[in-house]
Amino acid sequence: MVSKSKIPVGVLGATGSVGQKFIELLSNHPWFEVSEIAASEKSAGQLYGQRVNWFSSFPLPEKIAHLELKECVPNLNCQVVFSGLDSSVAGEIEQDFAQNGYIVVSNSKNHRMDKDVPLLVPEINADHLQLIKSQKNGDGCIVTNPNCSTIGLVLALKPLLDNFGLESVNVVTLQALSGAGYPGVASLDIMDNTIPFISSEEDKVECEPLKIFGKFQTNEIKNLEIKISAQCNRVAVVDGHLECVQVNLKKQASLQDIKEAWNNFSAEPQKLQLPMAPLKPIYYFKEERYPQPKLHRNLDKGMAVSIGRLREDPLFDYKFVILSHNTVRGAAGGAILVAELMKAKGYL
Amino acid sequence: MVSKSKIPVGVLGATGSVGQKFIELLSNHPWFEVSEIAASEKSAGQLYGQRVNWFSSFPLPEKIAHLELKECVPNLNCQVVFSGLDSSVAGEIEQDFAQNGYIVVSNSKNHRMDKDVPLLVPEINADHLQLIKSQKNGDGCIVTNPNCSTIGLVLALKPLLDNFGLESVNVVTLQALSGAGYPGVASLDIMDNTIPFISSEEDKVECEPLKIFGKFQTNEIKNLEIKISAQCNRVAVVDGHLECVQVNLKKQASLQDIKEAWNNFSAEPQKLQLPMAPLKPIYYFKEERYPQPKLHRNLDKGMAVSIGRLREDPLFDYKFVILSHNTVRGAAGGAILVAELMKAKGYL
Amino acid sequence: MVSKSKIPVGVLGATGSVGQKFIELLSNHPWFEVSEIAASEKSAGQLYGQRVNWFSSFPLPEKIAHLELKECVPNLNCQVVFSGLDSSVAGEIEQDFAQNGYIVVSNSKNHRMDKDVPLLVPEINADHLQLIKSQKNGDGCIVTNPNCSTIGLVLALKPLLDNFGLESVNVVTLQALSGAGYPGVASLDIMDNTIPFISSEEDKVECEPLKIFGKFQTNEIKNLEIKISAQCNRVAVVDGHLECVQVNLKKQASLQDIKEAWNNFSAEPQKLQLPMAPLKPIYYFKEERYPQPKLHRNLDKGMAVSIGRLREDPLFDYKFVILSHNTVRGAAGGAILVAELMKAKGYL
Amino acid sequence: MVSKSKIPVGVLGATGSVGQKFIELLSNHPWFEVSEIAASEKSAGQLYGQRVNWFSSFPLPEKIAHLELKECVPNLNCQVVFSGLDSSVAGEIEQDFAQNGYIVVSNSKNHRMDKDVPLLVPEINADHLQLIKSQKNGDGCIVTNPNCSTIGLVLALKPLLDNFGLESVNVVTLQALSGAGYPGVASLDIMDNTIPFISSEEDKVECEPLKIFGKFQTNEIKNLEIKISAQCNRVAVVDGHLECVQVNLKKQASLQDIKEAWNNFSAEPQKLQLPMAPLKPIYYFKEERYPQPKLHRNLDKGMAVSIGRLREDPLFDYKFVILSHNTVRGAAGGAILVAELMKAKGYL
Repeated sequence: MVSKSKIPVGVLGATGSVGQKFIELLSNHPWFEVSEIAASEKSAGQLYGQRVNWFSSFPLPEKIAHLELKECVPNLNCQVVFSGLDSSVAGEIEQDFAQNGYIVVSNSKNHRMDKDVPLLVPEINADHLQLIKSQKNGDGCIVTNPNCSTIGLVLALKPLLDNFGLESVNVVTLQALSGAGYPGVASLDIMDNTIPFISSEEDKVECEPLKIFGKFQTNEIKNLEIKISAQCNRVAVVDGHLECVQVNLKKQASLQDIKEAWNNFSAEPQKLQLPMAPLKPIYYFKEERYPQPKLHRNLDKGMAVSIGRLREDPLFDYKFVILSHNTVRGAAGGAILVAELMKAKGYL
Repeated sequence: MVSKSKIPVGVLGATGSVGQKFIELLSNHPWFEVSEIAASEKSAGQLYGQRVNWFSSFPLPEKIAHLELKECVPNLNCQVVFSGLDSSVAGEIEQDFAQNGYIVVSNSKNHRMDKDVPLLVPEINADHLQLIKSQKNGDGCIVTNPNCSTIGLVLALKPLLDNFGLESVNVVTLQALSGAGYPGVASLDIMDNTIPFISSEEDKVECEPLKIFGKFQTNEIKNLEIKISAQCNRVAVVDGHLECVQVNLKKQASLQDIKEAWNNFSAEPQKLQLPMAPLKPIYYFKEERYPQPKLHRNLDKGMAVSIGRLREDPLFDYKFVILSHNTVRGAAGGAILVAELMKAKGYL
Repeated sequence: MVSKSKIPVGVLGATGSVGQKFIELLSNHPWFEVSEIAASEKSAGQLYGQRVNWFSSFPLPEKIAHLELKECVPNLNCQVVFSGLDSSVAGEIEQDFAQNGYIVVSNSKNHRMDKDVPLLVPEINADHLQLIKSQKNGDGCIVTNPNCSTIGLVLALKPLLDNFGLESVNVVTLQALSGAGYPGVASLDIMDNTIPFISSEEDKVECEPLKIFGKFQTNEIKNLEIKISAQCNRVAVVDGHLECVQVNLKKQASLQDIKEAWNNFSAEPQKLQLPMAPLKPIYYFKEERYPQPKLHRNLDKGMAVSIGRLREDPLFDYKFVILSHNTVRGAAGGAILVAELMKAKGYL
Repeated sequence: MVSKSKIPVGVLGATGSVGQKFIELLSNHPWFEVSEIAASEKSAGQLYGQRVNWFSSFPLPEKIAHLELKECVPNLNCQVVFSGLDSSVAGEIEQDFAQNGYIVVSNSKNHRMDKDVPLLVPEINADHLQLIKSQKNGDGCIVTNPNCSTIGLVLALKPLLDNFGLESVNVVTLQALSGAGYPGVASLDIMDNTIPFISSEEDKVECEPLKIFGKFQTNEIKNLEIKISAQCNRVAVVDGHLECVQVNLKKQASLQDIKEAWNNFSAEPQKLQLPMAPLKPIYYFKEERYPQPKLHRNLDKGMAVSIGRLREDPLFDYKFVILSHNTVRGAAGGAILVAELMKAKGYL
C-alpha cells in the first residue's frame, strides 16, 4: 500500500498527542509514508480510527484510520520509527528498537542527554549526527529532538552565539496546554488561571542548550559553558510557547546588528530545501505587541521562530520575546526535520 | 443619609472599573461611607444604577444605585475623594480638587512621581506621608497608590531589603485582564492567546519601587539605588497578577532566612489594625505549584501577597513567584488602606 | 473535638470535587460539624491535607486538613453522612451505610429513581420525606438530591406549575466545567470550544422533574405527567449552569403574572429559616443580558436561581433563561439543605 | 497590477473584521482580485498595512498592505464591491454604489429584507437572483448574504424541507465571539462566562429563513410560512456557531431517511464547481460528541455545515446539533460564493 517511491515509517505511541501530530504532519509527506502504527499492548489489534480520540481539526486521514495498531515491539515492517512515547516507557522501548536495527527518531526525553545520542536541531548542530557511530546498535540508532521550550530558545540564540558570543541567558516561559499532552491539564486547573510550575521543565531548558550548542570532538560532545536560568509557567493557550528572554553577549552588538543576525540566519535545512524546513528559521517583528501565539504559531508551517521586542535591558545586555509552535517545531515537526536531514545526509 | 459616625467620601471616575471596585470595597466600611459619586460630564445628572455597566459579582448596593452622578468638579459634599479616573483626565482634575481643599487618594498614575506627592504602600513607607506638607494646596493634598504590578513586588521585596539588602531585581509579569480596565482587552485578542506587551507598564515597574523604597529626608524622598528590569505580559486570567522574580541580595541569606523574613513581616497597618489591612501581608506556600491566581488572589480579603517556589538561581541569588490581586491590593483596596492610615495618623 | 452543640457528620468521597464542596460549605455550619471523612481504600489512613488536591479558593480548614481519611465502610463515628461518591461505587456503599443505621444524604445518581427514596428539593417536595418510612433500613435511610441541571429548572418551574399548570417544557443547557468533577474535562477539549454532549445528562433532566413534582400518595410518589425535552452542552465556564427554557402552561398567564409568581415564591426552607436556605429562592432580572454565570452564580450564597429574559415565544407560550450554581445549589449546598430540613422536621 | 484574467473587486469596510476576512479569502482567488479597498473617511489616504489592526493568523498579503485606503464613495475602479460595512452606515453607502452602477454583494443586514433584494444562499435559492431585475439601479444592484446564525440553519434544513416538508423549527444558538466583530465582546464580559443575549439576533434567525426558503413568483418572493423560535447565546469560542435544533416535519421520516437526505444533498454551486463551494455542503457525524467548533469549523474550507446527534425528541419530531463557521460560510465566504454564482450565471 505504501508508494514505492516513499520510505515506510512507523509511529510509536501513535494514539497520544505527539503521535497524532506525527500522523498529521506525515500525511502527504513527499519522502515518508506512515505504514506502521504502534501503541500500548491494550490498544494492539484494534483499528486506529476506532481506538484513537483524534482531537485535531486536521481530519484523520482515511488510510491511517484503517491501519491496525501494533504493539511497540521491534517487528514492525519499516526501517525508521518516530517515537512519541510517554517517558515512562520510552527509554526501554526505544533502546529495544535501536538494538534491533531500527532508526529511532524520538521526541521523548529519556535518551536526550545520553553521551552517544545526538540531541538535534538541524539548523544548529547537524554535525552531531556523527555521534551515531558511537552507538553500539549495529545498523540501528537513536536520535532525539529537544524539549518544546528549548527548541525555540536555541534557534533564537544560535545567530547571537555565532556572531557575538553568549555569556548568560535568562528565560521565563509562558507555555501552551498542548505541551502537557492529552488529557494533560484539567480545565478546572487552568480556566481563569496560570500555573507557575511545570514538572522538571526548568531543568531541561537549563541543560539541553548546552549540549545542543556543544562541539563535536573526537566522538563526543563538549558542552557549551554558559549559565542559563529558566522559570516555566503554564498559561491558557492551546498551542504556542512564548518566552521572555534576556542575554549577555561576549561582544558588543547594536540592536541593528542583532536584528540583522536573526534576519540573515539560514542553515543546512534551508540549503538542502528539506520539505519540513521553514523558508526562514527566524522572523523578527517590528510591532511592539508581537509575536503572539494565536497570530504567529503557524508561521512558515509552524516551523519558524517568531521574535519581537528586542530592547536594551537594565540588568542584561538585551531582552526580547520569542514564540514557537510547541507541537510542530517543538515536537513532531522538529523530529521529522531531523529524519529529513538524516535522509539527505545518507543516514537512511 | 450618611451615618454620623462615618466619614463621607467621594469617588471620582465612579463608573469605571476601579471606581466600581472602590464602591464595592467601601460598602460596609466601618469608617468611610460613599456620599458622592462623580464621572464624566455626559454621565452627570443620571442615577448611578441607570448609568453604570456594573460587572462585579458583588451586587451593586441599592443605596449607591440611587445616588446621582455629579461632574468631577470640586463642589462635592465631602472632604476625601478616591480617584479611579482615567489617566487622560486624572492629572488636572485631581490637582483641581487638591487646590480646593480636598484630600485626594488616587490610583491614577499622573501624580505618582511628583516630587511632593507620596507614592504610598502603608506597610512600607508610611513615613512618606510627611511629604504632604510640601504640597502647596492648603488643606488639600494628593496621595497616590502604586501601579498594580508594582505593589505585589515591593511588598515581597520589603522584608528582603530590610534584612539582607537588595542589589538588583528582575521581574517578568503575567498580568490579569482586569488590570486593563473596562472594556479593556478585546476577547478576540486574548482568547487562546498571550500578549507580550502592556503599554508603559515596564517603565512603571522599573521606577516606582525606587521611590517607594526611598528615604524621607528633609522634605524630599531620596530614591533607593538599585537596578530593576521588568517584562510585562497579558494573560487570559480575570484577576490576579503573577510575577516571576529574581533577586541579588547584599548579604548572604539561606532559603530558610528568607522564608522567615517573609513570614515574620508585619508593619504599621497590622499594628494599627486598619480595617482593610491583611492580617499578614505575606503568605509563603510550600507547595511547588502555588501560588495561583484562581486559588490565592482573594487571600486575606485580596490584600495579601502570596509567594511560592523560592529556590536558588544560576544567575541571581534567588528566584521565586509572587501573586497579588491587581484590583484590590493593586488598586482600590490599596488606596483605601492609604486613607485608613491617614485617618489613623490624624491626617483626616 | 466536635462541639457538643453540633451534630457530627461524615463525608463520603471527601477528596472528590463534591466532597470538597461539602467540606467548604460545612465549615462554620451552625448545626453540623464534619467529624469523619472517608474516601477510597487507597487513601485511607492518610491525613486529608496530605492526600487531597484541594482546588477551591476557599482555604482548606486546618481542622479538616488534620483529619485521617477512613474507608467508606459503616463504622464511622457519626449518624449522618453526606455522599459525594462517584456513581461507579455509590450504589452499594450508600445502601451499606443505610442498612447499618446511617442517614445518607446523597448527591449521587444511583438511588435517585428508587421507588422508596425521596428525590428532594426542600422548596418543592418536602413532604416526600415520608417515603423514608417505606425503606427497609431500620433507623437508616437514603435521601437524594437531583442532578445539577435539574435543580435550577424545577425551582424555576415550581411557581409556574402551582399557579398556571405545566403542559410541556423544553430546555437547552449550557453547563459549567465543575459539573464534570475533577479532573473532568481536559483543557484541550474545551478551550475555544463547546461540546454538545454530556453523557446521560439529558435523560436525567427529562426524568427527574417528573418525580420531584410527583404527588406523595399512600407511601409512593405518583409522577407528574408532562413532557420534557432536554439538550445538554458543555461550555467554557467554571461554575454556573445556564438554561434556555420554553414552556406551555395550562392556564393563561401574562408576563406580569409569571414574574409575580416567581418574585412571590417562598417555601418551607425560607419559613423555617434553614441556615443554607436562600432568602429568596428566585431572583428575576429585568436587564435583558442577565442572568450570567460569572455575575449571578453566587447570589444568596449560591443557593438562589436567577431568571431573566421572560418573553413570548412563537412555538411555546413563553421562553426565559435560568441560572443556578451547579456545585452549590446543584450539589453540596442542595444536599446540606435537605439535611437541614430533616433536622428541622425531626428526622435526625 | 491586477491580472488581466481576473475580475477586479473592491472591499468596503476593509479594516473591519468582515473586511479582513474578505481580503484573506480573496487572496489567491482564481476569478477575483482585490484592487480597491475602502473604509471610513478618517482612514482614507493611508496605506492599508499601516492602518489596519490585522488580527488573523493568515498573514496580511504584501500587495494588499501597500494599497491605499479610499473613501466609501462610488468612484472605485472596479465593477463589483463586497461590503463588510457596519450596519450603522451600510444602508446608504450600498444604495449609493448600486445606483452608480456597482454590483454590491453585502454581508450587512440593512437591505436583506428589502423586497427587491435577494437574500442569497447559493445552494438554496439561486433563482432569487432574478429579483435583481426589479431593482431600479440600472446596471448596479444589491445582493445580500444572511446572518451568520441563519446560514448554518437553513443549509441543514433545506434537505428536510425538500424531502419531508417543515412545520416548525426551534433553535438555541451558542455563538462565537468573532460574530460580534472587533473589538466586539470585552474579555472581562466573556472569560468564565456565557451571555444569554445578542442584540436583535433572534429576530434575524426567526425571519430570514422564511425569505430564503420563499418562492420566486412574478418578480417577488412569497415567503415560506412556518414558525421558527430562536434563542441566542454568546459563548467563549473564537469561531464557529453551534446550534441545537428541533423540527417538526410534514411527512414521516426515519432517522435513516434524514441522514440520507443530508448526505445526498448537493446543489448548483457543487454542480458548477464554484471555487468557494464546499465539495459537500453537509457532513453528518456519527460520533455523539460531534460536531464541535474547534474540530469542525474549518471543514471543507470552512464552507460546510457539520451536523450530529440526530435523535427523536419528546416534543418535536427530531432534534440535532449543527455547526458552521460564522465568518467564513456565515459572512465573507458566503458572500464570495454569491459573487461566484453571479459570475457563473452571467450577472457579472
